[in-house]
Amino acid sequence: MAQSKNDVMFQVGIVGANGYTGIELIRILDRHPNVSIKKVFSHSTAGQNLADIYPYLKNKYPLTLDTFNPNTVADLDMLFLAVPNGTSHQYMKTLLNHPNLKIIDLSADFRFKNVKNYEKYYKVIHESPNLLPQIPYGIPELYRKEIKSAKACSNPGCYATSVILGLYPLAKEGKITGSVIVDSKSGVTGAGRTLKESSLYCEANESITAYQTGIHRHLPEMEENLGIKLLFSPHLTPMNRGILSSIYIENKQNLTKSQILEIYQNYYGKEPFITLLTDEKMPTTKYVKGSNSCAINIQVIEDKIIIFSAIDNLIKGASGQAIQSMNLMLGLKETTVLDTLPLYI
Amino acid sequence: MAQSKNDVMFQVGIVGANGYTGIELIRILDRHPNVSIKKVFSHSTAGQNLADIYPYLKNKYPLTLDTFNPNTVADLDMLFLAVPNGTSHQYMKTLLNHPNLKIIDLSADFRFKNVKNYEKYYKVIHESPNLLPQIPYGIPELYRKEIKSAKACSNPGCYATSVILGLYPLAKEGKITGSVIVDSKSGVTGAGRTLKESSLYCEANESITAYQTGIHRHLPEMEENLGIKLLFSPHLTPMNRGILSSIYIENKQNLTKSQILEIYQNYYGKEPFITLLTDEKMPTTKYVKGSNSCAINIQVIEDKIIIFSAIDNLIKGASGQAIQSMNLMLGLKETTVLDTLPLYI
Amino acid sequence: MAQSKNDVMFQVGIVGANGYTGIELIRILDRHPNVSIKKVFSHSTAGQNLADIYPYLKNKYPLTLDTFNPNTVADLDMLFLAVPNGTSHQYMKTLLNHPNLKIIDLSADFRFKNVKNYEKYYKVIHESPNLLPQIPYGIPELYRKEIKSAKACSNPGCYATSVILGLYPLAKEGKITGSVIVDSKSGVTGAGRTLKESSLYCEANESITAYQTGIHRHLPEMEENLGIKLLFSPHLTPMNRGILSSIYIENKQNLTKSQILEIYQNYYGKEPFITLLTDEKMPTTKYVKGSNSCAINIQVIEDKIIIFSAIDNLIKGASGQAIQSMNLMLGLKETTVLDTLPLYI
Amino acid sequence: MAQSKNDVMFQVGIVGANGYTGIELIRILDRHPNVSIKKVFSHSTAGQNLADIYPYLKNKYPLTLDTFNPNTVADLDMLFLAVPNGTSHQYMKTLLNHPNLKIIDLSADFRFKNVKNYEKYYKVIHESPNLLPQIPYGIPELYRKEIKSAKACSNPGCYATSVILGLYPLAKEGKITGSVIVDSKSGVTGAGRTLKESSLYCEANESITAYQTGIHRHLPEMEENLGIKLLFSPHLTPMNRGILSSIYIENKQNLTKSQILEIYQNYYGKEPFITLLTDEKMPTTKYVKGSNSCAINIQVIEDKIIIFSAIDNLIKGASGQAIQSMNLMLGLKETTVLDTLPLYI
Repeated sequence: MAQSKNDVMFQVGIVGANGYTGIELIRILDRHPNVSIKKVFSHSTAGQNLADIYPYLKNKYPLTLDTFNPNTVADLDMLFLAVPNGTSHQYMKTLLNHPNLKIIDLSADFRFKNVKNYEKYYKVIHESPNLLPQIPYGIPELYRKEIKSAKACSNPGCYATSVILGLYPLAKEGKITGSVIVDSKSGVTGAGRTLKESSLYCEANESITAYQTGIHRHLPEMEENLGIKLLFSPHLTPMNRGILSSIYIENKQNLTKSQILEIYQNYYGKEPFITLLTDEKMPTTKYVKGSNSCAINIQVIEDKIIIFSAIDNLIKGASGQAIQSMNLMLGLKETTVLDTLPLYI
Repeated sequence: MAQSKNDVMFQVGIVGANGYTGIELIRILDRHPNVSIKKVFSHSTAGQNLADIYPYLKNKYPLTLDTFNPNTVADLDMLFLAVPNGTSHQYMKTLLNHPNLKIIDLSADFRFKNVKNYEKYYKVIHESPNLLPQIPYGIPELYRKEIKSAKACSNPGCYATSVILGLYPLAKEGKITGSVIVDSKSGVTGAGRTLKESSLYCEANESITAYQTGIHRHLPEMEENLGIKLLFSPHLTPMNRGILSSIYIENKQNLTKSQILEIYQNYYGKEPFITLLTDEKMPTTKYVKGSNSCAINIQVIEDKIIIFSAIDNLIKGASGQAIQSMNLMLGLKETTVLDTLPLYI
Repeated sequence: MAQSKNDVMFQVGIVGANGYTGIELIRILDRHPNVSIKKVFSHSTAGQNLADIYPYLKNKYPLTLDTFNPNTVADLDMLFLAVPNGTSHQYMKTLLNHPNLKIIDLSADFRFKNVKNYEKYYKVIHESPNLLPQIPYGIPELYRKEIKSAKACSNPGCYATSVILGLYPLAKEGKITGSVIVDSKSGVTGAGRTLKESSLYCEANESITAYQTGIHRHLPEMEENLGIKLLFSPHLTPMNRGILSSIYIENKQNLTKSQILEIYQNYYGKEPFITLLTDEKMPTTKYVKGSNSCAINIQVIEDKIIIFSAIDNLIKGASGQAIQSMNLMLGLKETTVLDTLPLYI
Repeated sequence: MAQSKNDVMFQVGIVGANGYTGIELIRILDRHPNVSIKKVFSHSTAGQNLADIYPYLKNKYPLTLDTFNPNTVADLDMLFLAVPNGTSHQYMKTLLNHPNLKIIDLSADFRFKNVKNYEKYYKVIHESPNLLPQIPYGIPELYRKEIKSAKACSNPGCYATSVILGLYPLAKEGKITGSVIVDSKSGVTGAGRTLKESSLYCEANESITAYQTGIHRHLPEMEENLGIKLLFSPHLTPMNRGILSSIYIENKQNLTKSQILEIYQNYYGKEPFITLLTDEKMPTTKYVKGSNSCAINIQVIEDKIIIFSAIDNLIKGASGQAIQSMNLMLGLKETTVLDTLPLYI
């Protein structure tokens, strides 16, 4: 395995490099000792130099944004697709035909085993449903083995990551037999860089807003991977980064807190990116901001289990997790470049 | 009833005028045609001029902050107590002895019918539990009649106001027979102007934090007035003003949305400060910011009823509601000075 | 003069009612005892109900947004034009022909006596330059007499208001003979509700940005009305409301602070919306937020005079000042509905 | 030079590890391949575990905060003093006596060559003025050679760093012969984690405030190192991180923009942490947030030169610059651990 910038071996490309997940991939990969960003693509800003949009990149990445053509990336080792939903299903087949290329899709197109969930929630007829079984859902804490050997991987939704990591040990152990309510709060980067009124500073600032209660597109990802039903209620929160999911579970099996902690310890005790907080510590997105960690806090109050799960939506909820999967797929150490402390402030 | 500033008839005093609820009382009462602010008191800043702390008041309120003495306010018509919890129970009896004085207490000391709730949650032995029955809980939408004829009134907690208004019609009609989870998000003014680390800009900014899950002091107020049990989970949100309570109710009686709307219409259809939003409108604190309104949004999703209740915590959650009760207690029109549109931005 | 809602006499219309200055006009006029909002117009959202966009208006303003036609507003007493620059110069002549209608234009089209300034900075050929002399520049503190008798008034730019009010007494008295540097900081509402990347929450939040240094369109307004040259350097600041202009003046005449204060006292001592702060108080937009006031702070440091001028850009910098002029034009008390205390928080 | 975590050679300690500069030192040093954090000290939180205050550190830094004793750190290679002003001058002499210890003081105590500047601005009698000549002012772009060979180094003030870097080439070349006005805007972390009202969220949020105009303590640092007089006007800006200094210089020598750019290119062309932006790019703190860079933008407008200088106040303005000096003092590559891209969002 390479040890320094001098031994770089993997050439990567990024489609959608001009969006928030795109520049976050660039920001993190820039420190990666085994990766070199070779090509950047963008539909909306093709022809511009990346540094025209993000001037701080000018001396480091004098790359021109090209229109993406899936036929011309065979020479890359890894391609990140930070593209709109409903796009990558059209060319994944072409990409899979390049013998040396591996792919991580950050869109929703390959997140589902059940194509009907995709088609119902995204209103798109999937062109390659036959590819779904071979493309693992990219949460390494759940599917590490599958990701390691995959040629393509589908990076989860940000809300879904926070909720699935928060609930997985309990769900997997069959401890959730009652109702589950998930009240999530996300920073505004979750909406991307697209121009829309609800993303304007003056609209989002100084206000908190519930939206798409019970109908958000990340719900079916959660239900597929957890094997349980949820009520999912997202909220737009006035901050750039961070998701806090507050999860309320009917404690039908009367689990004690120490029983639950033991289960989580078993699942996550050796996970480098999961921090189990004892409950006197406040569950907050500050503790994970700028890092690839997921901070989980568990409480038992009367007849409910309450789990708080906090991530940085742009890192563990998007670009960081994608790089975690990339490390696995390229045979690198899983934590490479990702084992940094949070910013806190 | 007086019609203009020239016919002012009521002299008011404010104890704790230097805090956030204090200056919000001053801000709103300043436009009140029937009220004149005569005296301001403060323990921590006694001797200073109010305009030394809030310079924009200098030409309008050249008042000196005095140390409060309950024996020297007999000449006032109305006294607002914007004081720390555990204070007013020591001198309420003295205040009630002034024949012409009416009192609105914005602290928690007289919010409970069951003194044990107070003593358990506030760790204080109440000196005048015998006064509790005669002091109504100041949500006019619930206790208008009692407030009108009261000599003293206890102004509710901010979280409690949002949750009680959100649940009251259903609870009162006996429609809540399953579990209720309340996930509330409050702006930072809810913590007051006290110096503590969690209230520092850099700690609260760009982060959302759960705290006091299941043990917050506003919980027993909610349970007493609603007659049901709740799981209450508050969150500190990076904004100055606003509370959004997202309330998840097990719909054991399989109520339809139109049945629920009809109940709320019956209770609130004529209430000047309740706005029932049809559910295609996003529940958000923007719609009530700077106003005395409570915006309520109702949804039925699968086996749950979801109620969103939004207030400005400093107005309907504190000073505005206190003035609403004052209007009632002084025989003025309930909406005087309070019927303003929200700021939105 | 009317005394209460029952004696309303003036019918007003608002073109561009769906933008930020439009809803701020509605918010303030809603409390005006002598005004009734009769018609609302919008190009981009014509056909929608105002309450579809701003749901909190639903019970109060069930008005439909119409496409504006300057020929059909003859029945109104006052029309506010909250329209894009380059629009109103096309129909002002038509509007002036309605015998009973008065007009306040919040765009830049009639702000200049020298039409070349307009045409140079706005890249538009003015269709009615002959109307410019009869339309006063709507800062009542400078042109009260002209506004009172005007049929149409041009409402100033937000930056221009803060800078002109800050410098006027010194400039008028001929005390500015050296260089003047204006470093202004504005909240994001100054950019309006238009969709553009720099107005996105995640772009504007947690960052301060200089822009259009020396070339901003509000500069020629300042220079025309002050009769001096300035270097104007605006900055986009992460907050919704407020402008703080920090003005640095070469003190060529060696004025003392008390001499300067005396000049300002003479000009502004009786102005209801100007607050002169003694310099130990910090110049801050908090002191004027939500109010029609301009807070001015004066310091003399070595060979410089420093003037800080703070306004709420949506109120004294836009809709509030327009209403102040409306009050004058309609023969009402100038401070009607505007004499409120700031929100502070 | 060490190449990986396995070859760590330098043991460091941090006094004041619980403050914002302290945890920022920890955050950055955590990724440093040649450094191990061995001891942490704190006066106010002695006896606590670092992870009790910052729970995300619990598995990585199970260190207990000790009371600092300058006699017991002889075994360290490097000690960072993130202490209040007026402290380190009392024990620097003791520290310098430890033969193997090097010291970086982040307080103001050793920033001045002229001790009178210190004593006037900090109201403290300096106990070791004789040490001042041997302790370089830690801006490597100015004093790289001196820092490399120093046993102790004094880390500059945050405002001072932004202003000195912005002006140094022009000042050093003798091109500044007229007046200079510096209008700086800083995020709230600049005030540290100390409890004071102006640092409360609700006070700092949604407002911009000028303070200490002409009298701020960072002024004499700027004047000493630049050899010119300035008018310095700082402003508290509602954001966590970042300083933007807008610097207005009388262009007495009629320099053209290309002449100025050439000068800056000569001084900074090879500097790894200075980014010269061409002026069509907006000067903004976003471009340096989370990085050790200083972004400089130069404009010439009429008879003024305008320089915008942006840094992250916690990194290039504090902990990052300290580590840059540490790298030099320990014989490591200057950019080690610091050559990261900004967060932007």
